[in-house]
Amino acid sequence: MMSSPGAGVRVALLGCGTVGSQVARILIEQADDLRARVGRPLALVGVATRTERERPGVDPALLTTDAAALVARDDIDLIIELMGGIHPTLGLLTDALASGKSVVTANKALLAQHGAQLFEAAESAGVDIYYEAAVAGAIPIIRPLRESLVGDEVTAVKGIVNGTTNYILDQMHTTGADYADALAEAQALGYAEADPTADVEGEDAAAKAAILASLAFHTRVSLADVDREGISGVTSDDIATAEQLGCVVKLLADCSVSADGSIAVGVHPTLVPATHPLAGIRGAFNAVFVESRNAGQLMFMGPGAGGSPTASAVLGDVVTAARNRVRGVAGPGESAYTAPGITDPGKVASRHHLGMVVRDEPGVLSRVAAALARRQVSIQAVRQVQAPEQDAHARLGITTHIAPDADVRAVVAELEGSDDVRGTIRVLRVEGE
Amino acid sequence: MMSSPGAGVRVALLGCGTVGSQVARILIEQADDLRARVGRPLALVGVATRTERERPGVDPALLTTDAAALVARDDIDLIIELMGGIHPTLGLLTDALASGKSVVTANKALLAQHGAQLFEAAESAGVDIYYEAAVAGAIPIIRPLRESLVGDEVTAVKGIVNGTTNYILDQMHTTGADYADALAEAQALGYAEADPTADVEGEDAAAKAAILASLAFHTRVSLADVDREGISGVTSDDIATAEQLGCVVKLLADCSVSADGSIAVGVHPTLVPATHPLAGIRGAFNAVFVESRNAGQLMFMGPGAGGSPTASAVLGDVVTAARNRVRGVAGPGESAYTAPGITDPGKVASRHHLGMVVRDEPGVLSRVAAALARRQVSIQAVRQVQAPEQDAHARLGITTHIAPDADVRAVVAELEGSDDVRGTIRVLRVEGE
Repeated sequence: MMSSPGAGVRVALLGCGTVGSQVARILIEQADDLRARVGRPLALVGVATRTERERPGVDPALLTTDAAALVARDDIDLIIELMGGIHPTLGLLTDALASGKSVVTANKALLAQHGAQLFEAAESAGVDIYYEAAVAGAIPIIRPLRESLVGDEVTAVKGIVNGTTNYILDQMHTTGADYADALAEAQALGYAEADPTADVEGEDAAAKAAILASLAFHTRVSLADVDREGISGVTSDDIATAEQLGCVVKLLADCSVSADGSIAVGVHPTLVPATHPLAGIRGAFNAVFVESRNAGQLMFMGPGAGGSPTASAVLGDVVTAARNRVRGVAGPGESAYTAPGITDPGKVASRHHLGMVVRDEPGVLSRVAAALARRQVSIQAVRQVQAPEQDAHARLGITTHIAPDADVRAVVAELEGSDDVRGTIRVLRVEGE
Repeated sequence: MMSSPGAGVRVALLGCGTVGSQVARILIEQADDLRARVGRPLALVGVATRTERERPGVDPALLTTDAAALVARDDIDLIIELMGGIHPTLGLLTDALASGKSVVTANKALLAQHGAQLFEAAESAGVDIYYEAAVAGAIPIIRPLRESLVGDEVTAVKGIVNGTTNYILDQMHTTGADYADALAEAQALGYAEADPTADVEGEDAAAKAAILASLAFHTRVSLADVDREGISGVTSDDIATAEQLGCVVKLLADCSVSADGSIAVGVHPTLVPATHPLAGIRGAFNAVFVESRNAGQLMFMGPGAGGSPTASAVLGDVVTAARNRVRGVAGPGESAYTAPGITDPGKVASRHHLGMVVRDEPGVLSRVAAALARRQVSIQAVRQVQAPEQDAHARLGITTHIAPDADVRAVVAELEGSDDVRGTIRVLRVEGE
């Protein structure tokens, strides 16, 4: 475990794309500072890539397409994993940890699905696995949750953890663009990928939510536990509704402790009041808002993606893991000692906004209100406007008090089946109480 | 160094005031969680207080007024120092570290003046000294700077790190109160002490600036290195000027790398543009804004003071230090390997705003502009308004481009000695470029 005295800490890189190439650059450009901070040189001794193409700034002699052979080398102290994917990455990192190598990874999908296996392998071998870059890019959030708040009781973590969707929603608000146009612009600018599914359907945010909830609540939450809705269904009407209510639409990763002690973890487009600190997070920025029993409300913000910011987070972990190796120790591991269970998504309670078109005649509002009352869903505010394009119809917007999702959905189904409501009812969560 | 197998980690508390009593409460109320996170029980075995008065929730048998005897006990693993002050605290903590005890402290003044001595004592003994609570209360900023950003190159840290002064300035903006009234209100609400000197004269913020600069730039900056101006001279006119310029007045702790590589560390009332993330930090909240080469811009915000939030930061350090002891290791220490020197305060460059009353006649503006030009101070914007109360005079507001403080002051002295300017010129720094 301890690197031999006087020798450098020997590092191998798996993956040399947007982030990996920046990590390689910093290892070379800032080598003197890194050596001073670690106490030994950090030596990059191998780089595994998918193709044999050369990489600018990387010694061609270091390149290999055989990641497994690189991981199996016995002269390597630390593996930096930026290749992504589940297979063969999981096997490679498990082998690396088992053979006593420390691991730094930014692979949120892998951690959200197989974190337990990796954390246990690290614990058994007495080595580190660090992953600050897996959530919210350059923003330090993993270490604050794992160490700074470890003496407190975290009650909620709410985050804007996907820059692509935040950019798209921000554009819809500021330029009036519809979803398709805002997505196309994000793709043109490189903020969204050609296949944007993982971002816009909330998969990326859900993996990060699982990681945040695991740390915040000292348990193991996996991707499959996360209730997820993306932004592809967000319309210009939703944006207009938000603005009328003094809110903005954000894709919120929301992790909290339910009244029964179980853990609610979801990703949903949410109406966030303009007065909430998360409402001001613009463009491709990320932010994580933490509530705890003693510390109160904290917020962390910064660039959520990009090669250079993500590389900063990777290098912070590399230096910390390297310092530990020089001293022959491992840092504090996970602390997953609780098993509170996951809240049934239908029982997750929040405010909701129901937008519907109703017949404009006496008695309708009374019947809608009665349907809500029968399910104990209490009304916080009602707005009714004449729908200009639809004679004899009006638009009704109802904000509920906090109520379980299933109860609200049951009322919605009942109302949609009635003669009073035309078409479907748009349901959006509303942050706050 | 390693606590004996199976035994708990034995903790003593020096000081049981606002923060100490909350630390004692949490050690008792959250004992089960803390035990699970550390892997052993945390046992509070002694509490040193100034008087023999009993403390609610603390077993009277634990109380002592003899702090030195408590520190000298050989059955204690970890000292939590919340008594404050320089003497006898420095001696007590030096003795504690030398005898192999880990230390957690919130004592910013002590660290800013004698940090080097304490860090060296910890390093020699192979034990931890942690101090997350010393800067910005509950906000995790020490650990992110020391570990998360350790692979990056931090170029600036700007913080609102004193809640008392932020509350007073915020009140002056929102209610139009003058300084004396806003201070009196802060005192009535318990945000300011009866003797507010340490807060309003910037001493508290300066100690925090020294700590932040030391960590950010991997060097040793002490309180005496910090150029400091408090808020007691901030007038309603300054507030009005700020608002006319689209700014707010904030007491900013500003740590940055100068062009020659030296470190500029200062605390000054500063005009912060409303578009800057720090401008939105209201009331007694704190925030720290970090710029680094790779990560870009990050911001951390939260409650900057108060018993319970500060206790959260203390307990995070206690759990981390206790985990380290259970495993027989120490965490990463300071990394003060650079000695870039401190920028001469006169050479610190920033934008400035000069507010003055001038004779309202032809040629005056030309002469004022010429005086600035002779010192190479370039003008970014000029506003001139008739001063209604003063016949034949006008108010002139000049915002400069970035210029060294001494050059601006020299121009100010020259203008104040001329017939064109009536009275003194008010000089305020302006954040940004």
